[in-house]
Amino acid sequence: MTNVQEKIEAANQLVCKRMIEAQPILIDVRKSLDVVPGMLPNMILHSGPPITWDRMGQPQKNGILGAILFEGLVRDPKEVEDAIRSGEILLASCHEHSTVGSMAGVTSASMQVFVVKNQVQNNISFHQIFEPGENMFTFGICNKKVLEDYHWMNGPWAQAMAAGVRASGGINLRNIIARALTMGDECHNRCGAGTYQFTLELIHAMTEAGVDNKMLRLFARTGMEHPISFLFLNMAAAKNIADAGHGINYSTVVTAMCRNGVDFGIRVSGLGDRWFTAPAPEIEGLYFSSQWGKADASPDMGDSSITETIGLGAFVMSNAPALLQTVGSTLEDARGYTKEMYEITVTKNPNFLLPVWGFQGAPLGIDIRKVVQTNLTPIIDTGIAAKKGGFIGIGLCSAPLEAFQKALSAFGEQYLGNADSQKG
Amino acid sequence: MTNVQEKIEAANQLVCKRMIEAQPILIDVRKSLDVVPGMLPNMILHSGPPITWDRMGQPQKNGILGAILFEGLVRDPKEVEDAIRSGEILLASCHEHSTVGSMAGVTSASMQVFVVKNQVQNNISFHQIFEPGENMFTFGICNKKVLEDYHWMNGPWAQAMAAGVRASGGINLRNIIARALTMGDECHNRCGAGTYQFTLELIHAMTEAGVDNKMLRLFARTGMEHPISFLFLNMAAAKNIADAGHGINYSTVVTAMCRNGVDFGIRVSGLGDRWFTAPAPEIEGLYFSSQWGKADASPDMGDSSITETIGLGAFVMSNAPALLQTVGSTLEDARGYTKEMYEITVTKNPNFLLPVWGFQGAPLGIDIRKVVQTNLTPIIDTGIAAKKGGFIGIGLCSAPLEAFQKALSAFGEQYLGNADSQKG
Repeated sequence: MTNVQEKIEAANQLVCKRMIEAQPILIDVRKSLDVVPGMLPNMILHSGPPITWDRMGQPQKNGILGAILFEGLVRDPKEVEDAIRSGEILLASCHEHSTVGSMAGVTSASMQVFVVKNQVQNNISFHQIFEPGENMFTFGICNKKVLEDYHWMNGPWAQAMAAGVRASGGINLRNIIARALTMGDECHNRCGAGTYQFTLELIHAMTEAGVDNKMLRLFARTGMEHPISFLFLNMAAAKNIADAGHGINYSTVVTAMCRNGVDFGIRVSGLGDRWFTAPAPEIEGLYFSSQWGKADASPDMGDSSITETIGLGAFVMSNAPALLQTVGSTLEDARGYTKEMYEITVTKNPNFLLPVWGFQGAPLGIDIRKVVQTNLTPIIDTGIAAKKGGFIGIGLCSAPLEAFQKALSAFGEQYLGNADSQKG
Repeated sequence: MTNVQEKIEAANQLVCKRMIEAQPILIDVRKSLDVVPGMLPNMILHSGPPITWDRMGQPQKNGILGAILFEGLVRDPKEVEDAIRSGEILLASCHEHSTVGSMAGVTSASMQVFVVKNQVQNNISFHQIFEPGENMFTFGICNKKVLEDYHWMNGPWAQAMAAGVRASGGINLRNIIARALTMGDECHNRCGAGTYQFTLELIHAMTEAGVDNKMLRLFARTGMEHPISFLFLNMAAAKNIADAGHGINYSTVVTAMCRNGVDFGIRVSGLGDRWFTAPAPEIEGLYFSSQWGKADASPDMGDSSITETIGLGAFVMSNAPALLQTVGSTLEDARGYTKEMYEITVTKNPNFLLPVWGFQGAPLGIDIRKVVQTNLTPIIDTGIAAKKGGFIGIGLCSAPLEAFQKALSAFGEQYLGNADSQKG
């Protein structure tokens, strides 16, 4: 048993070392079919752990419908259900294709994605590009206007972005995140400092690539008016860092947390590609209008909790005090959350220093053993999707303990040959 | 006496109301001779209260020498002292010409200035433009390279900036400051969030004005690499706000605090254009290199304490925790300073909300009575100039009590007809 304990500690240290060393660089913008591993012309990726069409919530179904129409996979929306049930159209989890997707997470073959490469361990991660506005498939809205927007954003907009990224020689996302943490971003629901930096770097590179003035103007305006834009790159970078620590035998560190609006799921470094799930939690938060309330809200949805997986987001919300009113929290509560997250993690990330914590590193390496032992589960700040589709608020939720308990049982079975691992 | 007390309270409320209402907008970039009131071709403005050449410190002398050579007012540097003593070249305080100047503060007739207009009370304020790098006259360095840079920055660089500002229709500086306070700027020695926002707004406008790609690229790079750039606009905006509250009879509110490296001086709203001075304090801080220490440092210099005059800078350093290490302070100390500054001010500024203080407004309206009564003087975070010229560190100092005592005595003489005003 002691020997196993030592192996677990060593494995967890190695996972964290790899996550700390990871150096995510935005190297390109490409069509997903050309770069995402296993992507197929008739495949639609969604957020969260794998889920069948029948169990899926409406916002994610809406987004998938949009992606199918965008790809022209059916002529009539009425054919969609049959095409999915017959296997003519395939659904898959983003995470199983090195990808993350915000909210509904829909990503299809013709959509352009950010290509983020870890320059140390060489793993590659993807997230759909942002557009100048709100990516409506993502929020489960699909109509003619959104379809038109998608053609434009995956055409001229993506080309301009690609030209800039290529001319830049690579944009170092870890550096942007590190600076953003000194400027009040928690890098999940508050991303303004990251967005400003990224926009300046991109515009700088675009001027070298000869992108025309009208497009430069649009990028500048998007940077000013849509401070959440950089979230997609925070997510791709977080996935890149988390994957750098995945697949280490004996490690009890979580390498993915995600939700599809029905299930919440985690992966663990030492447990391969298995998912451990529990019902997606409800979100406690503030709604953008008094017309909406809890009854309208979808349970937690999206891969954005990959930011919390590497210790950002709500884990460090206490370092982003301007966010707190938006999610209906207080500085005192937020400080309490950060303290708790230090209790369930392996170490502190020397790359991501928190000024309000005297430049301590952000919590890194969620240990399923510590979660189960303490009953403290990861805290997540997140957008609220409406059950019918649409973005209606922002709030907080706690990851369900059950997923971590299941993972720990599986760990016991795999490494100890029994189910009595919860004391391990 | 009660009547006078009521008049003072009413006057101070009015001053703060005017400062709160003020809406500083960057409306233009122009040659100072064409826009700065009272500017003359043979006049050099300096930071701080008025001072004669003979009493002036070396860094300010170096900067003035640079400006004189830049203007071509003498053929040989050896002629400078005679030209100043004979009155052929005039020296004047920036503040007496609606201008503020960082560090040495040298501003001459051909230099281009930001033109900031308060759209409510219509007063106008100025600060020299920033350049892509460090403005070396400002730090008391003058050589051939700096002179060349000055010609370029006041030529093509200024033209591009002017084209952008004009195309923008005016850039709202109060809004940028308000957002920057939610992103870890204290708006004096930490200005990155302001710089990013301003750079994006300016580039956006420049693309409309047809500024060429090479210049756009340079502005983008300057925004990324010189996060202090926006300080000059924070200062011009602060001067604009402070002046909106100046000249109200019976008011004991401070409307200017500045230093010339020898004297520290204040102006008070109800005491007209008189200066109340005391020796400039020494700065406690951190030096950029171990080769420098206190013996190398000039006493406090520059008009940048106009940011503290309106309650920013060190007053709200507790809201900008990433700055603290740079100035050699701690979060606990910084919180203590903010608490003290609330004690010596009239009200809280509803435009400038502080997330780490639960969105309380920044302290506003330094009351000379409260300063003298409490012995708490304004805290200032500031750059350290070398006695020989050059920028060698950043630190903290406290305004000298003596200046506030002198002002209060003068207030008693003017409004009470006696010198027994310190109990007032």
